[in-house]
Amino acid sequence: MQIEWAERNMPVLMLIRERFQREKPLAGLRLSASLHVTKETAVLARTLAAGGADVFLAPSNPLSTQDDVAAALAADGIKVYAWKGMNEREYYNAIGAAIAHSPQVTLDDGGDLTITLHKLAMGISDESIQYARETAGDLDFKALVKGIYGGTEETTTGVIRFRSMEREGSLLYPIIAVNDSYTKHLFDNRYGTGQSTWDGVLRATNALIAGKVVVVSGYGWVGRGIAGKAKGLGARKVIVTEVDPVRALEAVFDGFEVMPISKAAEEGDIFITATGDMRVIDYNTMLRMKDGAMLANAGHFNVEIDVDAVEKNAVGKREVRPFMVEYKLPNGRVIYILGEGRLINLVAAEGHPSEVMDLSFANQALAAEYIVKNRGKLTPSVTKLPEDLDIEIARLKLKAMGIGIDELTEEQRRYISAWALGT
Amino acid sequence: MQIEWAERNMPVLMLIRERFQREKPLAGLRLSASLHVTKETAVLARTLAAGGADVFLAPSNPLSTQDDVAAALAADGIKVYAWKGMNEREYYNAIGAAIAHSPQVTLDDGGDLTITLHKLAMGISDESIQYARETAGDLDFKALVKGIYGGTEETTTGVIRFRSMEREGSLLYPIIAVNDSYTKHLFDNRYGTGQSTWDGVLRATNALIAGKVVVVSGYGWVGRGIAGKAKGLGARKVIVTEVDPVRALEAVFDGFEVMPISKAAEEGDIFITATGDMRVIDYNTMLRMKDGAMLANAGHFNVEIDVDAVEKNAVGKREVRPFMVEYKLPNGRVIYILGEGRLINLVAAEGHPSEVMDLSFANQALAAEYIVKNRGKLTPSVTKLPEDLDIEIARLKLKAMGIGIDELTEEQRRYISAWALGT
Amino acid sequence: MQIEWAERNMPVLMLIRERFQREKPLAGLRLSASLHVTKETAVLARTLAAGGADVFLAPSNPLSTQDDVAAALAADGIKVYAWKGMNEREYYNAIGAAIAHSPQVTLDDGGDLTITLHKLAMGISDESIQYARETAGDLDFKALVKGIYGGTEETTTGVIRFRSMEREGSLLYPIIAVNDSYTKHLFDNRYGTGQSTWDGVLRATNALIAGKVVVVSGYGWVGRGIAGKAKGLGARKVIVTEVDPVRALEAVFDGFEVMPISKAAEEGDIFITATGDMRVIDYNTMLRMKDGAMLANAGHFNVEIDVDAVEKNAVGKREVRPFMVEYKLPNGRVIYILGEGRLINLVAAEGHPSEVMDLSFANQALAAEYIVKNRGKLTPSVTKLPEDLDIEIARLKLKAMGIGIDELTEEQRRYISAWALGT
Amino acid sequence: MQIEWAERNMPVLMLIRERFQREKPLAGLRLSASLHVTKETAVLARTLAAGGADVFLAPSNPLSTQDDVAAALAADGIKVYAWKGMNEREYYNAIGAAIAHSPQVTLDDGGDLTITLHKLAMGISDESIQYARETAGDLDFKALVKGIYGGTEETTTGVIRFRSMEREGSLLYPIIAVNDSYTKHLFDNRYGTGQSTWDGVLRATNALIAGKVVVVSGYGWVGRGIAGKAKGLGARKVIVTEVDPVRALEAVFDGFEVMPISKAAEEGDIFITATGDMRVIDYNTMLRMKDGAMLANAGHFNVEIDVDAVEKNAVGKREVRPFMVEYKLPNGRVIYILGEGRLINLVAAEGHPSEVMDLSFANQALAAEYIVKNRGKLTPSVTKLPEDLDIEIARLKLKAMGIGIDELTEEQRRYISAWALGT
Repeated sequence: MQIEWAERNMPVLMLIRERFQREKPLAGLRLSASLHVTKETAVLARTLAAGGADVFLAPSNPLSTQDDVAAALAADGIKVYAWKGMNEREYYNAIGAAIAHSPQVTLDDGGDLTITLHKLAMGISDESIQYARETAGDLDFKALVKGIYGGTEETTTGVIRFRSMEREGSLLYPIIAVNDSYTKHLFDNRYGTGQSTWDGVLRATNALIAGKVVVVSGYGWVGRGIAGKAKGLGARKVIVTEVDPVRALEAVFDGFEVMPISKAAEEGDIFITATGDMRVIDYNTMLRMKDGAMLANAGHFNVEIDVDAVEKNAVGKREVRPFMVEYKLPNGRVIYILGEGRLINLVAAEGHPSEVMDLSFANQALAAEYIVKNRGKLTPSVTKLPEDLDIEIARLKLKAMGIGIDELTEEQRRYISAWALGT
Repeated sequence: MQIEWAERNMPVLMLIRERFQREKPLAGLRLSASLHVTKETAVLARTLAAGGADVFLAPSNPLSTQDDVAAALAADGIKVYAWKGMNEREYYNAIGAAIAHSPQVTLDDGGDLTITLHKLAMGISDESIQYARETAGDLDFKALVKGIYGGTEETTTGVIRFRSMEREGSLLYPIIAVNDSYTKHLFDNRYGTGQSTWDGVLRATNALIAGKVVVVSGYGWVGRGIAGKAKGLGARKVIVTEVDPVRALEAVFDGFEVMPISKAAEEGDIFITATGDMRVIDYNTMLRMKDGAMLANAGHFNVEIDVDAVEKNAVGKREVRPFMVEYKLPNGRVIYILGEGRLINLVAAEGHPSEVMDLSFANQALAAEYIVKNRGKLTPSVTKLPEDLDIEIARLKLKAMGIGIDELTEEQRRYISAWALGT
Repeated sequence: MQIEWAERNMPVLMLIRERFQREKPLAGLRLSASLHVTKETAVLARTLAAGGADVFLAPSNPLSTQDDVAAALAADGIKVYAWKGMNEREYYNAIGAAIAHSPQVTLDDGGDLTITLHKLAMGISDESIQYARETAGDLDFKALVKGIYGGTEETTTGVIRFRSMEREGSLLYPIIAVNDSYTKHLFDNRYGTGQSTWDGVLRATNALIAGKVVVVSGYGWVGRGIAGKAKGLGARKVIVTEVDPVRALEAVFDGFEVMPISKAAEEGDIFITATGDMRVIDYNTMLRMKDGAMLANAGHFNVEIDVDAVEKNAVGKREVRPFMVEYKLPNGRVIYILGEGRLINLVAAEGHPSEVMDLSFANQALAAEYIVKNRGKLTPSVTKLPEDLDIEIARLKLKAMGIGIDELTEEQRRYISAWALGT
Repeated sequence: MQIEWAERNMPVLMLIRERFQREKPLAGLRLSASLHVTKETAVLARTLAAGGADVFLAPSNPLSTQDDVAAALAADGIKVYAWKGMNEREYYNAIGAAIAHSPQVTLDDGGDLTITLHKLAMGISDESIQYARETAGDLDFKALVKGIYGGTEETTTGVIRFRSMEREGSLLYPIIAVNDSYTKHLFDNRYGTGQSTWDGVLRATNALIAGKVVVVSGYGWVGRGIAGKAKGLGARKVIVTEVDPVRALEAVFDGFEVMPISKAAEEGDIFITATGDMRVIDYNTMLRMKDGAMLANAGHFNVEIDVDAVEKNAVGKREVRPFMVEYKLPNGRVIYILGEGRLINLVAAEGHPSEVMDLSFANQALAAEYIVKNRGKLTPSVTKLPEDLDIEIARLKLKAMGIGIDELTEEQRRYISAWALGT
């Protein structure tokens, strides 16, 4: 029922599903995905299956699976290896199981599936690899990876990882950076995370945002979505911390306070990290905070807030509400960490609304089709989905929302490309 | 005194001036510029002169010159050929005079100087060229253009023109697209035009924005600045019209109504064009408007609103207030065209505030220096100022505003470029 | 633990509790309350008990009780008669039990307790009275009501009811309209309901507000809170419907669209009622709505949306998600009613955040004390808490938030009350 | 032409004018007004004249007269005694001339006309009275005042003065506090001053508001209009200073910083006073300000910023731009005072837009008519215009804007006044 509700709100993906059903562009394809197992992912999985793919679904975060969705997908015949609250080992077992499926296309959200495949193929071993091997079994991973036509990646975080690999020359198969599509990062990151992060914070704390000082670390698309909605919810002051001078200056001119995190630490009531980097809020920063400060993370990995450090140093710890843990610091103050420092929108709420995942997953579906259509022609690099497909997604979404726009007249088209006309 | 006031608000450009004074990087350089002759341009001209250049200043719009500024610059020994309210012929005479100066570097805002140079060198003739020749005299324009190290361009409009020329192979010397610097288009176009356009509209009309329906055509950086400030001023409804589906969808999710201009025409009280294209509001669109609709343009050229058509077809015309002309249409309704459909912020107000021109003109000054330093090495193409110079401008601006930001730690720098770390 | 979390966020009420503990101003008082049984109410109940009162707590809405809170209060020795999901009979049984306690002071939220007492004393009988009598037993209700020193009322809705009674001459004991305190209606209704209503809608639907058309019926304090936050969350268009021309005009100048509900019905994606009146959205209005429209109520009683009519006329009904019921209309479209048309913030979320209930319940506590202190001196009319107490609550809240303000100098005080000084 | 433009934007007042023309409710009435002589006042004056009154117009501020308007009105046969840039003596000469006209009704904006009449009748003398007598001549002022049916007052400031007089028992004739009408203070003060104050600041400074720290003193209707628009224009931080705890707390929850002026002084780039009190920014506060701070006043009288003190203590002074004077302080910093600390929206811009004056002046016109109709029945006290007239103005405005609203059904009307219906 929940999935049906999502389908109603994902009209672009449903149009793609209809076409996939008719055209079967993924017929016989083995496709493994590491995605948050939510109702929206279910709509994508069913779309890929409708296109003829044999879909295997692993989670992309140990805490983000919605169990009823996993069950419904399994009932549909999609292979799912995921449940809410996996431990580290179970999580990488799931990745391993997705690999055992010998995928020809991978769909990734954060990069764990793709990176694990690369480590296996390159013979790198660490704990995550040992866990993955427990379920992947003893395959020829080099050959397996050679057989992959290509993969996709959903997040900024994952794309940064793959670009590093590309620069190093260690990327083994082509990656479509879905995140780089306009209809992905301009929408999902800004409007989706902007809202769902606050939804998560409200469910975890029931705090009144009006009157609060909110600190947002990182002013990328996610950070600006969160900062904008903080203002919209009536925060008394929204402080942005940044390392990039251009983004910092944009934040200033967008009406935010900008200062170093060490100073912001002393002012904030609620802190939200969205940088993609580690230890943005370290233990020393926590020691500067006011009594009762609340900390949440909206970045992909749970490394932005140094939860380990506070776990080690706190002199008291208790759960005050679901997803809200109080730590008593040696200086006598308490701070609250929400959702263990993991993606708060997925842990405490339901992730992005379907309406915006419609755009992101339309990109995923078209990227999978594009990889299949162009198999053998793509090189092991990180590229975008062709711009015409990207724009077509926007066009379909506007249409589904009943919104019309203008077309350039012939005269206007000519004018815009003529250089000799002037004042 | 006005120029001094601008200098106080342009700290980045003043820091560059100090260095130019010491280092004289433009010593002996002949530099011709076609820029709006405002107090901010005066601060730039003095900076270039401080760097050792011999500066010649022509206007970039027949109506935008501030006569007191022109007089003050002339008193400084800078050659100025500009006054408020030039006619077409006088305007191109000024361009011609700038060309007669045999510039080695050109600074442009809209592209008229550069295009005129190209037409002269290519032997293209039209009315504007005839006017330019009246003052440029009988030079060997091919040789003159060959001697140019490079030029800059301030606006989106100009950059689009030069990119067309580059594609056609007709661009004759290197152009630094100042507009493409982050510290230019992200700031000047959005915050500068966003505010100054409304300043111009308010001065021209004294209309109450609260309660009004505002239609903004174009959702580029300029358009989104104008639309955002319209909301900030309390407009009852802000409608965006667009031809690009991605931008249109962004406008929707940013909280604006989106519809075709033909439909928006019937709802709007105030229309502002910011597309860079022609006849965005044509005569048929005007005929659909409510009695009393007001029309203004924020795009570079006065072609976005079809003023000629209404001039030809109106059954009555009178000036109601300065910069506000009432046209009686054959259908019995009246519409008001502000500032003759020319850049309303320059015609009815004072253009961008100094604070934001500080960033744009810091780019112009550094671009001129960059062209001189790299003369002979640049090819006839359109490129950006190197990113490190761009970021340095942002850094200086933050410093001048007393705003600190964070630096990546060594650990964070490593993390962000490592791909093997995961969940 | 939840209650402790609320206590941390209710510093003003906690300061009052400290004083009550010392001074025991309510010693021996029998106090019956009909309030939403939430963690914040628990903080109030404990405060009243600390003041020496013998507290009896009934719910003020059949669905709004949080069972863990009820249990915790019972463990504290406070008499609670409430659980989540009572039926009509059980609800009035609870009211009756509160009456059986022979209260000297009543605290009310919506007025059901006070009205029931009046009906009993006046010999009016209806179904609710029959249920109340089942637990109230066979008392001399006239005498009982005579013994009541006074009561309080929390909501606009309740105050409107009591003012009607006062006008008719049927009000039997003094009522302090807590809602009329500045520190109540300016805060709780606007900021509290503004946020918590959206919290409820998001939990019920997980809908993306960006891009949606939101219709808010009623532009009182509650309605303007909801409309403002709708904009803050990025709604594409916020439409207000009103019956009062002054409020309607304010909405227009605040940047909202205003139109009759019949027209708004065709545009809205999400409808929220906040009028205090009945059948604001009737069945005919529902028939005009777009397929998939969502309807929620933020007013005190579940009469604003005509749920009965759709229950009777719909050709299909199913629960899509918790608190979200889909009705298939005879015209083929579906609409979604959230939380059965009851107060969405209490049904689907947790009611107002503690921070704002701190102000409202500080008023309740001081009103109870004021009634006791002035017993015998107050007449059966509806009055406000004295303004100095009201202002003192604001002062304490600012202090608790660490916010300083200015004091008038002697000279300024004189100036503001002198009339002879002019231009 | 300007007046015609105003007429187009004042549809409610024009409807009243039409009726006045037919009904002549003010036939033969001697009416003296002290109002800002702007195009909107011209529309009011013509309306009063259309109603049959013999109108005499004096200014209500020495700097706010628009000379072309004064000339146009004189040409219409309305007696005007006003020009831009009067000195103190000329200003009170004008008031005296208005008094010489022996008015039966007075219209006031700030109270100078009414207060002068009272001082004359009470035999109080000061410099302003001596100036007034120069033109008023040697009348029996007691008798003159006795003959006045009543007066109106436009501003909060004036109403405060008259309420003081009423309390003291020194008010000599009835005053309709136009400012207390909903359709006045909820609109003119908030939306009108909110916008026009910024219009004045922008014209005086051409400063970029984005990135600035703005300090607003006073959070009444004017202050909240200014603070809201500051945010809308992109200010980095908006600080409110207040003396009233309830308003201060509202400001906090509306998303503003609140702090004492002594602390705000150190942070602000632009300061705007709107308190109605004196010396809100005193010399010591100025000494704490950052180099380059700008100060403007939006309150009725030029006493909020202590201009005299800075005039006396500054070590340097020069006009940088029209309406912008730079003072060099002994501590080496400079500050800029805009428009001599007088109402910045009237001094540097054009006062409120016509659209909002339409509401205020509709109240003035109806108040004049109400006084005439009820002459002899009103007592010397400060009262509001009857609420039905107030609401009718809102209804006419909505109609003129083409905006429809709902009507209560009979059932709804009954429900809202019934107390016995409950949960």
